[in-house]
Amino acid sequence: MLAKELSTPVLTVDLDVLERNLQRVAEACRKQGVGLRPHTKTHKTVEVARRQLALGAVGLTVAKVGEAEVMAGAGLDDILVAYPLMGQEKLRRLAALARARRIMISIDSETAAHELSKAASAQGATLGVLVEFDAGGHRCGVERGPAVVALAKAIEKLPGLKFRGVMSYFGNVWGTPEERRAETERVALRVAGALAALRVEQMPVEIVSGGSTPSLEFAHLIPGLTEIRPGTYVYNDLNTYYQGACRLEDCAVRVVATVVSTAVSGRAILDSGSKTLTSDLLNAGPKFGYGYIVEAPDAPIIKLNEEHGLVDTMPSKHEFYVGEVVTIIPNHACVAVNMHDEIVTLRQSEAVGCWKIAARGKIR
Amino acid sequence: MLAKELSTPVLTVDLDVLERNLQRVAEACRKQGVGLRPHTKTHKTVEVARRQLALGAVGLTVAKVGEAEVMAGAGLDDILVAYPLMGQEKLRRLAALARARRIMISIDSETAAHELSKAASAQGATLGVLVEFDAGGHRCGVERGPAVVALAKAIEKLPGLKFRGVMSYFGNVWGTPEERRAETERVALRVAGALAALRVEQMPVEIVSGGSTPSLEFAHLIPGLTEIRPGTYVYNDLNTYYQGACRLEDCAVRVVATVVSTAVSGRAILDSGSKTLTSDLLNAGPKFGYGYIVEAPDAPIIKLNEEHGLVDTMPSKHEFYVGEVVTIIPNHACVAVNMHDEIVTLRQSEAVGCWKIAARGKIR
Repeated sequence: MLAKELSTPVLTVDLDVLERNLQRVAEACRKQGVGLRPHTKTHKTVEVARRQLALGAVGLTVAKVGEAEVMAGAGLDDILVAYPLMGQEKLRRLAALARARRIMISIDSETAAHELSKAASAQGATLGVLVEFDAGGHRCGVERGPAVVALAKAIEKLPGLKFRGVMSYFGNVWGTPEERRAETERVALRVAGALAALRVEQMPVEIVSGGSTPSLEFAHLIPGLTEIRPGTYVYNDLNTYYQGACRLEDCAVRVVATVVSTAVSGRAILDSGSKTLTSDLLNAGPKFGYGYIVEAPDAPIIKLNEEHGLVDTMPSKHEFYVGEVVTIIPNHACVAVNMHDEIVTLRQSEAVGCWKIAARGKIR
Repeated sequence: MLAKELSTPVLTVDLDVLERNLQRVAEACRKQGVGLRPHTKTHKTVEVARRQLALGAVGLTVAKVGEAEVMAGAGLDDILVAYPLMGQEKLRRLAALARARRIMISIDSETAAHELSKAASAQGATLGVLVEFDAGGHRCGVERGPAVVALAKAIEKLPGLKFRGVMSYFGNVWGTPEERRAETERVALRVAGALAALRVEQMPVEIVSGGSTPSLEFAHLIPGLTEIRPGTYVYNDLNTYYQGACRLEDCAVRVVATVVSTAVSGRAILDSGSKTLTSDLLNAGPKFGYGYIVEAPDAPIIKLNEEHGLVDTMPSKHEFYVGEVVTIIPNHACVAVNMHDEIVTLRQSEAVGCWKIAARGKIR
């Protein structure tokens, strides 16, 4: 069955594009001498994680215990929970997982360190711990300098924990290639600051984890970085494209949708709204619209209701008609994927299979 | 267990508030002499639909065949698919459903009428059909006047279909009570226009379906309206509150979240991001922020990443600390509910049960 014959709306992934993306970034990491620990948040799918590991990834990244459980349950190992989890129920599950698998977690507070230690000790588990520092994103992370050392030392003293290094998320690396390179150079100074503080105290730092998709090509500019955690690169999306970090044909994930109404003048209505594409805005390029219609790029999706995508047909010569099937590249692949229970796999527009998005909805 | 002892993030519903909302609107419809066919998109939950019917709802509304299947599968009947479905696979399922249940659908094109007729005839089913007209929302719906008549007549001629009336969505009724009343008065004229055209042709109109939550208190201003389809009223949300259409204490659904980081100055990070709350903006009142923190209303959630809610702590005297559990009223209940597989039911802050959000993710 062709992609356009599928019942819509439906999420699809072109396997040729996916495989090319996986290989390109595996290769880019090898060339830059940095390990790849891909963030599975983008795909939430065991089949993709397996391919990432087969291509040499040093491990996986997740944000939730539930996501780690899905990956570990599929036999995958060496998982970093890049999120400062709090709450006894979740930490109990994390510690249980750490008895069977190599599990690390990043934290930025002594409170988290104590809670983790209690949970790990209670089950005789050992958790690897990374200290998260702020490399300019101002989201999580202690300040570079004494705070990194203080938290690392606190971790070293606590039973059940093993300090293994530092991590940061380079969400602040965003924009044109020039902007991204310049911000990566600032990030490099901040990473150096964090590492210098630890060096003075002669603390061994095994892992220095950073990265994101928009910064991945500049990883070599950051001395000391041992691994990066890009997520989006497997699928790419409009945000990646408009930053010049991929081509349009590198966008592997597309929503196939049907035109259900053209009754209102100047409008075509798609059966993909915010419950299919999400209401995430475009944060790069024109910063406008809710997805790219491959068949009519000049017809913007100007608004989403829950089940309605409102297309402005006025700027386009494309003649939309009821029953027409179109293909949409989403603004943000990670959140779009999270709306779907499964993703249909394609080879040259032919549906060849279907993967369960097994870690979707694992919010805890 | 208390709500704040649950593993977070978690979606909760206060049953006392829910029951009060259900009763209030059932009563408001009785007083206004209009039927209530609640849109289940807000809760997607069989247990809530059952309560709506028990309180006198004339039927249910859904947007997708999959949602209709969930409700019908639970033994519920008289379901309006208020969406112009296109695609053979979905129409086949709809026709199958119509053999066992009373099913109606709204459409706004002859193409849809022909496709529906084919699907219904093939299975010897009869589908009730409403003609959707545009009452000012400019989303779906034919123009009032001859187009309504033409489509109604086309439907009457097609096998497997039964023309039952007209419908529109009053999404354009939005804003302050004064703005909503004024727009409802304009909607009333448009409804009258659609009905007048049919009356001239002596076409019997059994059902005149309209409504939304912000317009529900003004239903009596629309002569001829037989039923309304509000959804949000069961749970309410910040959008409803800021329009003056409910009180804050009428917001039944809340996300319980944990503060996971306070490392960055001026910030607290919650474990509820766009994958928990959605990135739907606030479309009423201050039109700013991603939810209302009950414990610190003066601390806005200024940004969401997928798993991080970024709180600006500067304007607030509240002292956020790592491990603190807070309660968030979402901007938009319908989309927030859609992110969760289940919802914990509360009585006076005590967890008393858990409902499956059975129609979540039924995108087809």
